[in-house]
Amino acid sequence: MKMLYEGKAKQVFETEKEDEICIHYKDDATAFNGLKKDSIQNKGIMNNKITTLIYEYLISKNIPTHYIETLNERDQRCVKVDIIPLEVIVRNIIAGSCAKHLGLEEGIKPEEVIIEICYKKDELGDPMINDSHAIALKLVTRKELDIIYSLTKKINVALIELFNEISIDLIDFKIEFGKDKNGTILLADEISPDTCRLWDSKTQEKLDKDRFRRDLGRVEEAYLEILQRLDKRERN
Amino acid sequence: MKMLYEGKAKQVFETEKEDEICIHYKDDATAFNGLKKDSIQNKGIMNNKITTLIYEYLISKNIPTHYIETLNERDQRCVKVDIIPLEVIVRNIIAGSCAKHLGLEEGIKPEEVIIEICYKKDELGDPMINDSHAIALKLVTRKELDIIYSLTKKINVALIELFNEISIDLIDFKIEFGKDKNGTILLADEISPDTCRLWDSKTQEKLDKDRFRRDLGRVEEAYLEILQRLDKRERN
Repeated sequence: MKMLYEGKAKQVFETEKEDEICIHYKDDATAFNGLKKDSIQNKGIMNNKITTLIYEYLISKNIPTHYIETLNERDQRCVKVDIIPLEVIVRNIIAGSCAKHLGLEEGIKPEEVIIEICYKKDELGDPMINDSHAIALKLVTRKELDIIYSLTKKINVALIELFNEISIDLIDFKIEFGKDKNGTILLADEISPDTCRLWDSKTQEKLDKDRFRRDLGRVEEAYLEILQRLDKRERN
Repeated sequence: MKMLYEGKAKQVFETEKEDEICIHYKDDATAFNGLKKDSIQNKGIMNNKITTLIYEYLISKNIPTHYIETLNERDQRCVKVDIIPLEVIVRNIIAGSCAKHLGLEEGIKPEEVIIEICYKKDELGDPMINDSHAIALKLVTRKELDIIYSLTKKINVALIELFNEISIDLIDFKIEFGKDKNGTILLADEISPDTCRLWDSKTQEKLDKDRFRRDLGRVEEAYLEILQRLDKRERN
């Protein structure tokens, strides 16, 4: 089948159905806007499984998503959507770029959950923008933004609960949304250690892509740990 | 009297009254976070007069401000406020840093007016932040932000009208707010060609600090032109 799009960690293929796509998870890993590149063994397989378990959980919580089914080790069947070119970032605890940006220590819990939006545009380096920029750029309408923020808050509450059950603190995460052929806004893209900061609740050990970004070692082991805990919860 | 604070373009002194200050307008001009420094002849005198005329107009439109009276060529008496460490930027037309940030041409009119907030913190380079950052940093409460945005929109409508009367397009401007001893939010700081982009409505000639920033020449003349047009309108 024809490849529609190739991203840093995934490929998207058309299927025999016009309104469905197949998403293929690769082992490639990049950081710092593509400046750091490598591959993480079996990452594609692990992130496909982790995303599957998380999407099945979110669907059980009535979150509208693009997910249909997982086909094999590396492939998912999903609804075809027009991706809204916004990265929506939720921060329960200050870490990473946000700590630098605001001059705060990593690990601080803000008064209110921080939600950021970034304009997905490689040439500009995916800059952080605000609501009025997003509307000025015609990326979304005010009404669509309201829906996106409302879904984002629900997703955050659900994910905090899920990760809490497996003794993981959900520090922050990035999600994306798309619109299906009817214009309905659906959660899309993966949710995995590539897109979340996940710290062990007891030891505060990082079990996410920061191990790759910051050369902390035991990268594959961290992804596997998340997968095993989610999988064990699922089977209980 | 004791100097309480010295900024790039102004000095603030205490007065014999505890809840009032004296603001002294200097000729110093800086750009690019202080990297470019010079002085513009008589800028302090012109900006004091321009700010006076604009504040008197805004007060006539029922905008709450810190302004009390103008004492002489370079000094104003104002209510003492705790400055909220936010720069509120209003963009009616895309220009300057916003054009670069969003990858848009200068001169485009956005669908909706763009309002940005920046965290006033020299060490961080006054970064642009969003509402949830401002609340996380405890710079303001959600309620205070609502008041600030509501006042900002009213001020923009009033200023567009004022400048329209003197054949000037108000491209964008920066304002600041402070809280008086009762916690009331008041418009503070200057409003002048240092803090606004002002283009002649017919010729689109820049009549503001961009002449200094971009070495366009005739800097003093631009400030004087704005002052003279405002002054003529006032006398009519």
